[in-house]
Amino acid sequence: MLGAVLHAPGDIRVEEREDPRILAPTDAIIRLSATCVCGSDLWPYRGIETVTEPRSMGHEYVGIVEDIGSDVRTVRPGQFVIGSFFASDNTCEICRAGYQTSCVHRQGVGSAQAQYMRVPLADGTLVATADMPSDDLIPSLLTASDVLGTGWFGAVAAQVGPGKTVTVVGDGAVGLLGVLAARQLGAERIIAMSRHEPRQKLALEYGATDIVTERGDEGVARIKDLTNGLGAHSVIEAVGTQESMMQAIRATRPGGHVGYVGVAHDVHLPGHELFFSHVHLHGGPAPVRRFLPELIELVQNRTLDPGRVFDLSLPLTQTADAYRAMDERRAIKVLLHP
Amino acid sequence: MLGAVLHAPGDIRVEEREDPRILAPTDAIIRLSATCVCGSDLWPYRGIETVTEPRSMGHEYVGIVEDIGSDVRTVRPGQFVIGSFFASDNTCEICRAGYQTSCVHRQGVGSAQAQYMRVPLADGTLVATADMPSDDLIPSLLTASDVLGTGWFGAVAAQVGPGKTVTVVGDGAVGLLGVLAARQLGAERIIAMSRHEPRQKLALEYGATDIVTERGDEGVARIKDLTNGLGAHSVIEAVGTQESMMQAIRATRPGGHVGYVGVAHDVHLPGHELFFSHVHLHGGPAPVRRFLPELIELVQNRTLDPGRVFDLSLPLTQTADAYRAMDERRAIKVLLHP
Repeated sequence: MLGAVLHAPGDIRVEEREDPRILAPTDAIIRLSATCVCGSDLWPYRGIETVTEPRSMGHEYVGIVEDIGSDVRTVRPGQFVIGSFFASDNTCEICRAGYQTSCVHRQGVGSAQAQYMRVPLADGTLVATADMPSDDLIPSLLTASDVLGTGWFGAVAAQVGPGKTVTVVGDGAVGLLGVLAARQLGAERIIAMSRHEPRQKLALEYGATDIVTERGDEGVARIKDLTNGLGAHSVIEAVGTQESMMQAIRATRPGGHVGYVGVAHDVHLPGHELFFSHVHLHGGPAPVRRFLPELIELVQNRTLDPGRVFDLSLPLTQTADAYRAMDERRAIKVLLHP
Repeated sequence: MLGAVLHAPGDIRVEEREDPRILAPTDAIIRLSATCVCGSDLWPYRGIETVTEPRSMGHEYVGIVEDIGSDVRTVRPGQFVIGSFFASDNTCEICRAGYQTSCVHRQGVGSAQAQYMRVPLADGTLVATADMPSDDLIPSLLTASDVLGTGWFGAVAAQVGPGKTVTVVGDGAVGLLGVLAARQLGAERIIAMSRHEPRQKLALEYGATDIVTERGDEGVARIKDLTNGLGAHSVIEAVGTQESMMQAIRATRPGGHVGYVGVAHDVHLPGHELFFSHVHLHGGPAPVRRFLPELIELVQNRTLDPGRVFDLSLPLTQTADAYRAMDERRAIKVLLHP
């Protein structure tokens, strides 16, 4: 089969690779219907995360179950499934509390930019749709595998709800779907921080009521201006840098909530400022599995259209073009057809 | 009148000072019935916070209203009152959300280690008791002014409740009252981290079910041992150092809550570890005012006996001895009789 391998920063190739096999009786093999490139894939692609050996890439997936191990009970060959980027048993105490990405038996799921992939702990990780979804829903279902679930978790962690003013820091796919989540969760006002016109446009279509183009201290000042000097009730942080985290914390009112879902790189939070900020801080790798049944339902009944974050679709063989388009910010998010 | 003034690290003196006067129509003057030394007073006393000029000390107080400004409506001369260490209007949006220590009109309250003191924003800051409390309740009522309210906020911020396993980092007065708060809020199990026998004893009497004497990584490993390897649901951090904060975060299970109330000094939280810890983080200067009516009631009906944290009482004139006893950890907390 074909699969994408990162050999060095900037050097991603689609190569012939061995087909994945069932290794544990709890595994499933799926044939991918669609996969995509994640903002977090750009960290090693840009060399910010070290690449010491060839690395098969991708962790977002939807597809058809091809084979299952002898212990798998809840999915069967032929079903259309969606899963999270971390495999979880979905039965341990941590999973039951809704934190499947910290499952005590957590395993990474990888090599999704390929034609076939192995998913460990299939019963706990995958959710099958009731029937075969129509083709036009596949991009939206694919977002539920990561970016929609992550934006949603950011909104939930930020305690978004009716009557709340929400700020979203970051205009990548996760930030944009944070806007969509905030609208769906009933936010009264949604301020999107973005300086890129196509992204501003999608943010507005997804429910943003205000756009702030300033960043850093100026961005914070603008949020304060828009909120009687107090700051937002809820801020979704979807970048993961020191600047974006501090912008999120400072844009939140005392007693408000920051939901942070951008993977933190070289971030150090000053304790004294955090203490006096009086904010709630919660985030981390989104427990997408918690939200999958609800998000699949909202996509299938066409309440949500998160698939619009894919503004470019390419065949898997053009994965290198897909990374380049995202790296150069020419595309928000690129879907790959295996 | 007499009042305590810190001239330099280690040099605290009780001196004749000018009586406080009404400066704003929202002020009240109170004659102190009791005051005390706070763990946070030790930061400048130890020179960890810089002392550049003589500084009048103290921010915990109960007393009798002596005089009020022309705009004060809710308290009157002769009443027994308790207030917070920050003055608040108790009417702004932030106060109404329960964050009075971040009130938009917040003012510091100081000079409480004295015979008389001025309290700004008296209507929003002070709570009067229904009648004159008996003398034996005064120490417990005094704790409501800061340490009880702070331990309580730590427990509330850590989402302590029935069925929860709670860990308390710090065995000062705030940590001990965090234990008491956790018991009152229905925690199933309360693990106090302490290596000082008299404090362990009080922790057990306040409801701790387990004592852990180890600190740092070993302390975290002990908490994991006691919680099926998962960590506590709720951790109250009542110290404010890098070590204690990391101990609190690492002792919390994914999805659990850290309530931090130790004033953070030289703390920097590593973003990447925090991200993957999956904890909720909330804390800051306790909005004592939010809890005062409830805590006064619990003290007056003798449900809570937080005054036991005072294991030494001295006349105000011996304030220097009081600081020394706390600095040398000979006393948990020292009450001063003005």
